[in-house]
Amino acid sequence: MKKQTLLEILQAVQANELSPEQALLKIKMEPVDDMGFARVDRHRELRQGAAEVIYGEGKTPEHIVAIAKSLLSSGESPVLITRMSKEAADYAGKELELNYDPVSRVGIVGEMPEKDGKGTILVATGGTTDIPVAEEAALTAEALGNQVTRLYDVGVSGIHRLLSHAEEIMSARCIVAVAGMEGALPSVIGGLADCPVIAVPTSVGYGAAFGGVAALLSMLNSCASGLSVVNIDNGFGAGYLASMINHI
Amino acid sequence: MKKQTLLEILQAVQANELSPEQALLKIKMEPVDDMGFARVDRHRELRQGAAEVIYGEGKTPEHIVAIAKSLLSSGESPVLITRMSKEAADYAGKELELNYDPVSRVGIVGEMPEKDGKGTILVATGGTTDIPVAEEAALTAEALGNQVTRLYDVGVSGIHRLLSHAEEIMSARCIVAVAGMEGALPSVIGGLADCPVIAVPTSVGYGAAFGGVAALLSMLNSCASGLSVVNIDNGFGAGYLASMINHI
Amino acid sequence: MKKQTLLEILQAVQANELSPEQALLKIKMEPVDDMGFARVDRHRELRQGAAEVIYGEGKTPEHIVAIAKSLLSSGESPVLITRMSKEAADYAGKELELNYDPVSRVGIVGEMPEKDGKGTILVATGGTTDIPVAEEAALTAEALGNQVTRLYDVGVSGIHRLLSHAEEIMSARCIVAVAGMEGALPSVIGGLADCPVIAVPTSVGYGAAFGGVAALLSMLNSCASGLSVVNIDNGFGAGYLASMINHI
Amino acid sequence: MKKQTLLEILQAVQANELSPEQALLKIKMEPVDDMGFARVDRHRELRQGAAEVIYGEGKTPEHIVAIAKSLLSSGESPVLITRMSKEAADYAGKELELNYDPVSRVGIVGEMPEKDGKGTILVATGGTTDIPVAEEAALTAEALGNQVTRLYDVGVSGIHRLLSHAEEIMSARCIVAVAGMEGALPSVIGGLADCPVIAVPTSVGYGAAFGGVAALLSMLNSCASGLSVVNIDNGFGAGYLASMINHI
Amino acid sequence: MKKQTLLEILQAVQANELSPEQALLKIKMEPVDDMGFARVDRHRELRQGAAEVIYGEGKTPEHIVAIAKSLLSSGESPVLITRMSKEAADYAGKELELNYDPVSRVGIVGEMPEKDGKGTILVATGGTTDIPVAEEAALTAEALGNQVTRLYDVGVSGIHRLLSHAEEIMSARCIVAVAGMEGALPSVIGGLADCPVIAVPTSVGYGAAFGGVAALLSMLNSCASGLSVVNIDNGFGAGYLASMINHI
Amino acid sequence: MKKQTLLEILQAVQANELSPEQALLKIKMEPVDDMGFARVDRHRELRQGAAEVIYGEGKTPEHIVAIAKSLLSSGESPVLITRMSKEAADYAGKELELNYDPVSRVGIVGEMPEKDGKGTILVATGGTTDIPVAEEAALTAEALGNQVTRLYDVGVSGIHRLLSHAEEIMSARCIVAVAGMEGALPSVIGGLADCPVIAVPTSVGYGAAFGGVAALLSMLNSCASGLSVVNIDNGFGAGYLASMINHI
Amino acid sequence: MKKQTLLEILQAVQANELSPEQALLKIKMEPVDDMGFARVDRHRELRQGAAEVIYGEGKTPEHIVAIAKSLLSSGESPVLITRMSKEAADYAGKELELNYDPVSRVGIVGEMPEKDGKGTILVATGGTTDIPVAEEAALTAEALGNQVTRLYDVGVSGIHRLLSHAEEIMSARCIVAVAGMEGALPSVIGGLADCPVIAVPTSVGYGAAFGGVAALLSMLNSCASGLSVVNIDNGFGAGYLASMINHI
Amino acid sequence: MKKQTLLEILQAVQANELSPEQALLKIKMEPVDDMGFARVDRHRELRQGAAEVIYGEGKTPEHIVAIAKSLLSSGESPVLITRMSKEAADYAGKELELNYDPVSRVGIVGEMPEKDGKGTILVATGGTTDIPVAEEAALTAEALGNQVTRLYDVGVSGIHRLLSHAEEIMSARCIVAVAGMEGALPSVIGGLADCPVIAVPTSVGYGAAFGGVAALLSMLNSCASGLSVVNIDNGFGAGYLASMINHI
Repeated sequence: MKKQTLLEILQAVQANELSPEQALLKIKMEPVDDMGFARVDRHRELRQGAAEVIYGEGKTPEHIVAIAKSLLSSGESPVLITRMSKEAADYAGKELELNYDPVSRVGIVGEMPEKDGKGTILVATGGTTDIPVAEEAALTAEALGNQVTRLYDVGVSGIHRLLSHAEEIMSARCIVAVAGMEGALPSVIGGLADCPVIAVPTSVGYGAAFGGVAALLSMLNSCASGLSVVNIDNGFGAGYLASMINHI
Repeated sequence: MKKQTLLEILQAVQANELSPEQALLKIKMEPVDDMGFARVDRHRELRQGAAEVIYGEGKTPEHIVAIAKSLLSSGESPVLITRMSKEAADYAGKELELNYDPVSRVGIVGEMPEKDGKGTILVATGGTTDIPVAEEAALTAEALGNQVTRLYDVGVSGIHRLLSHAEEIMSARCIVAVAGMEGALPSVIGGLADCPVIAVPTSVGYGAAFGGVAALLSMLNSCASGLSVVNIDNGFGAGYLASMINHI
Repeated sequence: MKKQTLLEILQAVQANELSPEQALLKIKMEPVDDMGFARVDRHRELRQGAAEVIYGEGKTPEHIVAIAKSLLSSGESPVLITRMSKEAADYAGKELELNYDPVSRVGIVGEMPEKDGKGTILVATGGTTDIPVAEEAALTAEALGNQVTRLYDVGVSGIHRLLSHAEEIMSARCIVAVAGMEGALPSVIGGLADCPVIAVPTSVGYGAAFGGVAALLSMLNSCASGLSVVNIDNGFGAGYLASMINHI
Repeated sequence: MKKQTLLEILQAVQANELSPEQALLKIKMEPVDDMGFARVDRHRELRQGAAEVIYGEGKTPEHIVAIAKSLLSSGESPVLITRMSKEAADYAGKELELNYDPVSRVGIVGEMPEKDGKGTILVATGGTTDIPVAEEAALTAEALGNQVTRLYDVGVSGIHRLLSHAEEIMSARCIVAVAGMEGALPSVIGGLADCPVIAVPTSVGYGAAFGGVAALLSMLNSCASGLSVVNIDNGFGAGYLASMINHI
Repeated sequence: MKKQTLLEILQAVQANELSPEQALLKIKMEPVDDMGFARVDRHRELRQGAAEVIYGEGKTPEHIVAIAKSLLSSGESPVLITRMSKEAADYAGKELELNYDPVSRVGIVGEMPEKDGKGTILVATGGTTDIPVAEEAALTAEALGNQVTRLYDVGVSGIHRLLSHAEEIMSARCIVAVAGMEGALPSVIGGLADCPVIAVPTSVGYGAAFGGVAALLSMLNSCASGLSVVNIDNGFGAGYLASMINHI
Repeated sequence: MKKQTLLEILQAVQANELSPEQALLKIKMEPVDDMGFARVDRHRELRQGAAEVIYGEGKTPEHIVAIAKSLLSSGESPVLITRMSKEAADYAGKELELNYDPVSRVGIVGEMPEKDGKGTILVATGGTTDIPVAEEAALTAEALGNQVTRLYDVGVSGIHRLLSHAEEIMSARCIVAVAGMEGALPSVIGGLADCPVIAVPTSVGYGAAFGGVAALLSMLNSCASGLSVVNIDNGFGAGYLASMINHI
Repeated sequence: MKKQTLLEILQAVQANELSPEQALLKIKMEPVDDMGFARVDRHRELRQGAAEVIYGEGKTPEHIVAIAKSLLSSGESPVLITRMSKEAADYAGKELELNYDPVSRVGIVGEMPEKDGKGTILVATGGTTDIPVAEEAALTAEALGNQVTRLYDVGVSGIHRLLSHAEEIMSARCIVAVAGMEGALPSVIGGLADCPVIAVPTSVGYGAAFGGVAALLSMLNSCASGLSVVNIDNGFGAGYLASMINHI
Repeated sequence: MKKQTLLEILQAVQANELSPEQALLKIKMEPVDDMGFARVDRHRELRQGAAEVIYGEGKTPEHIVAIAKSLLSSGESPVLITRMSKEAADYAGKELELNYDPVSRVGIVGEMPEKDGKGTILVATGGTTDIPVAEEAALTAEALGNQVTRLYDVGVSGIHRLLSHAEEIMSARCIVAVAGMEGALPSVIGGLADCPVIAVPTSVGYGAAFGGVAALLSMLNSCASGLSVVNIDNGFGAGYLASMINHI
């Protein structure tokens, strides 16, 4: 249920087009749509300012489509599907108007919204192998109405590559910095930027990278101010938070 | 060096009161003040929009005072000193106008600035033992010009205590949620709030709390959107980031 | 060997229908049935008040069927088989009257017992991906004679979903709370409930979830009283203990 | 607020001795007593069936006494104080009728209640060094109205010591098994007993004991059914849960 | 090179059938047979009292056969091959007189030696899933000339199963105790036995078993005296050491 | 109770100097001497072939003396006390004939036994900082009747120091190899020796030594055969096991 | 861009064959060749003294070939491709003059350079299973112009194998010591050698080898001087550093 | 024994001033000076090209002085003492010509040698709290005859501080990069420099810094080539290795 929908109900009450009892019923009916395998929570946008997102991992293609349809029927659009397998995308593509990005495994159903964020979100990566996670962040931010600038493969062991983009870094309203291995990119960017930096460790690397733990620890211990961290490979969380900051 | 100071230099150039060469010299002279034991980086406010903060841990009282004086002499005010021991505070109190809070071990030299943040920052804790870290965050935010609401001891195992403050949660512009042990407070707050939530794990607890690791992992794995995490006990980092978001 | 069977033997002795020597022989013969690959311990119900359960993981379909038959021939019923692969279920289904649930991978041979537990066991999950583990708990409890209420997908980042079921929570005699990722559900339920809460971490999640370790630590550190924890994904253990508590 | 007190209020309403509005006020006034440094939650007994317990660690002697007095003034008795330092006990002893056990660092203010539990709780330890944690559990259980049997220093590397007490094990209604180092005691007891076993790992041991982690893991992986685990050294949690089970 | 062979060379020198120079050459030629992919160290039996063992993991079937033939041509027999895949066994079976046990993945080429150990080695396991590792130990010990008694599935959560074999335990000259999950079996056996106990953790289990780490830590922290530990799943190491002790 | 004592009782029965009932009483009376704070288990020598050892850590000087006296009064001698603080030694020295070694913190009460082991036990260390643990092993072995050779400070980064003692290594009947940091000593010794090697990791070192974990892992992963590992700093356990092997 | 090329540009400027502006353009154009999926950094040799190396893991065969061609077209030769799958090699082999080593998964395009290193690099391994990582190091060093001596399967549990090569060890200018499991080889070599030793832990081993962590910790804690460590399985990094040292 | 001394002995043999037998005796007498508590290995310089270094941690002041005197009497000078406590320095200062640096806790006895290294060693730190470890490295390098440049407090979150010293970085012959917390300094330096970079993690930091583990992992995972890592806080090891590289 969109905030707007709720407001219209309340205005209808004010205008005596709807009794309070009817209004209550209307609202109460909305929030949870029990589908047997998952409670689709339609009040979420109202409470958190964005449409429900479907976390595709571990869900069958059939479930994904059913949840997406339920959301679309409530007027939610676009619907973002993360961690969507190629198989699920193939199945869903027959049932829904789906745009699917195989790199980030993100699917989007419905039109992209207008860009109503207040500034630009910069998404940067240390290497090329971090791109899938970065794209999850970038597409999430775009699906939530943000202008996104991508700056990929600018890792700190070749610092001039990063510094030649100092302007983009300094003019962003929020930065998502994605890196695996030593995870130092957010620290360096954090020292250059004047805006919140969301650090995303990736599970890229081998040996003592420990599936992203090395990068995670590096980011948590950064000396740069204005920096916070999300879970390993959590591009969606970073993109969502960046959008929230960009809309404040 | 404050942005304002730099602007004045540049305007003086524009007004021909200063040659570009003199201006350059003035700016270049400023940034790094080499004191032998630490480079005081006076360009930092310019680059990051806030005064230098002194991390007191591991510094002698004499060093702290010397760095503070150097900053004050450049016009930085207030100067925030974190992790300041009682001993350092006693020593510094004789040399500087210091306000010292023994709970959070934060010292502040100089006048508190006017509250120019755009909304209110809510600082919440799960228990009473989390208060030192929360106060580090709250005092940092206040020293950076923010209105702060404190909501302490509202842990999730007595959920009604938290819910009775839903209004404060929903009207904040940014929330700092501080918790040790199971670290679940940010998740629940994140589900209620519509703004960025900065989660701060604390080293409170015993046994399998592992000095805050349990809370840290819990927060990194939160299902709530709009949530990010800083290092264990890093109240300063959370307060700083909250202020940044509140000033965007 | 059921307690009842032993009592009958003893009563037969008392009634002189059986000499003590014959009784001893009868009892001694029972306990361990050495099948070469596993000692089937038929005294276990006597000692622990429930039928032998077959842990299906790592056992061949042939072994599972052989052990089940051995138990059934001693009068144990129903026989519960956990971690049973689809393949084992297909094979066993030809030999035995098997009810198999592919979600939880639980198989049950024989009639469900009457519900002789003293109250209701509530099984709750944080998300939909926790359902396989929750069903292992629920089916185990049902197979041991308990009334079970299911409350799935009520995670703490949407706290109203949980609170709208406060009544079920408060009226349960024992609660099994299943959650992955941040694992906060048991803490919140523990604060609401007035009965023992058995927390089950699941290996659901990615990145710093570390296969359930984050949830496990969160639960061990819960501030809620009356809460204890079983191994990651150990739905069976939770259901078994809940039944024990519900039959005291 | 005790359940009884609430009932009396409600009965006064029924008897027209109190208007519903007055009753509401009376109830609402009760729950949270904001003392500045901690919200004393007086509704807790109502919700969880036991008096508030004060966790003494990290609280000053003055705070402990203030909270205890606040609770006593609401009619809560006895008040249990865990992790109470010798210093706090000395201070509190002057202000309150305190019984203090230096081994477990448990303090109890007020009369012990009558033993209204339905059976006996057995508290067992592997070694003598586990006794402080075991006594925290035992005293907690006694303060909550339970009959407690102690069985100390019966570790599994001398299995006959344990087996010579098989009767106590088999006749208990709930068992708290406390062990450090290899943590095997609960597994062996769990195989013998017919009731819930609450395993408490202790931080006793050296080297690869890792402050109780070895024992914790051992207990989480136990093959014995009916066994669950609480945090390392959490004697209070175990005693509280045992009492809850013993009062069902 | 067997000790016997060396002795014969030396005796030939004594008997003037061989010049010291020729003897030296003979001995020097023996030890290392460089096969390009591995140095076959033929002096090893001389130094360690047993034939070379081939660790099959990560070696191609062709390499295994080549090494085995090289050893056999030096008079080593039997040759033990551990961690041998089914594929390698099929290949080797065509080239050599191989006895292959698919459970433990042990292959033995050549006749079993006479049982010249001084007593009996007991190999015990906690569950049926520990049998592959136990068999690796048992077959290793048998290939090195020991009498082995097997006692499988006698885990501590059904302690009577173990105790009914107290005699075998007390009469062994060395015991190999194999267990996964909580790993308590060696502790209990260690308390009963009067001989060295070699504990072998197995990677059996799930969740917080962490691939055998829980069992490993449990064993390292055992209170039983006379107990030492080998690597997770290292049945060979345990069998080898047991044989060494049994031949002293 | 010593084996000899039991045998005498049994012979007295055979000789009709004692009735079986009296004998039973005599035996039963012996084993456990309940002292309130610890069950002194006097049957232990009977079962494990050595006198009770007192683990001094965490015991008060008074308890140590009381337990020692109880053991001495049963004829046990010598009594070995490990992890004995200087304070406990000072106290005990006034009550008992104590030999105390401050380096290993081992105390021995009573005469050293005759050396009835079958060969020599070699105790080696990598560095000088490992000596306290090595001495705990050596003194334990000596107190149990073994000839001990010490070979200290022969770490692998100066391999010639070790090799110049190859003869001692090759002629030992059992070796205790003590090392911290990289823990490589047992591997090299294991390759040279022809007898069981007991590896003892020590908590010596800094940084990534992690209190002995690095050495522990190194030893568990050793390629040398005939090697097993005890807990970090567990010199006693190693000395005890070495004695057991030396007495087989 | 090779240093030589840059020098030629600069000399052309000096010789007035090129204006400074043209030179600048030429240089600026060179460094980053944006190919959409990766920034090929052509300035790298200039800055680090070696050609760009392609890290093949996670790159498609098409990407690898495109990057290689881009590098070759700038005059870089040879191009080294690490972690190259068999599939990628097959594909690349059709497009480029590729030498591919399936053991180390290293591919080299172009002629091997002349051996201009100042001494010999020794590459040693503990076992045969470490050879793939060692070959990655050796081939990297050879591709960078070094003479390499290989010394494989000389693990410390058969120390004589290593010592018989003391001469090679003592005459090397830099040593790469590769070992898994207990990782002791670099320590022993470090004690013998007089030159820098680069230790490479491998993920070889099982159980408590933890994918190379045991070896890594062992190497970090080595007592030998002149030793440093690279990431687990990082043969390339070791070979690269060895070459750097050999060219100083 | 210095290489020079050995050469002189050999030349004396050549010149017939010494018989080979006398020479052998002279050499053999030298190497190990058994002092009871530590074998002073006087051949070490011969084998490794530097004087013995005394690791002061855990050694009594008396031992340190005794070892130092033994070394000095063999002609070793200077003698470097690391991890030397203030107490040990006070004691040693009375017996020896000691220069003691309280920051790094390094003591040096004897004259500093001439600077015979081939280039300059750069020692850099991320923050001021890393200076003690950096000074241990720098003083070690100086005591071994190297020119050292110090570049402290140039952490990556203020990248311009580092870049303003690009020249020093690019002209060094070997770099020691010391950093705690996120440990990113070596990665950035490694990208700029053209020489070997030795990374030293420090135990500086709090929370998820884990005593230097975060920095250690970050460094092991660095993408920069030519970088290797030593143990946490191991300034000595880094300085020693840097000197070795600088003298090749």
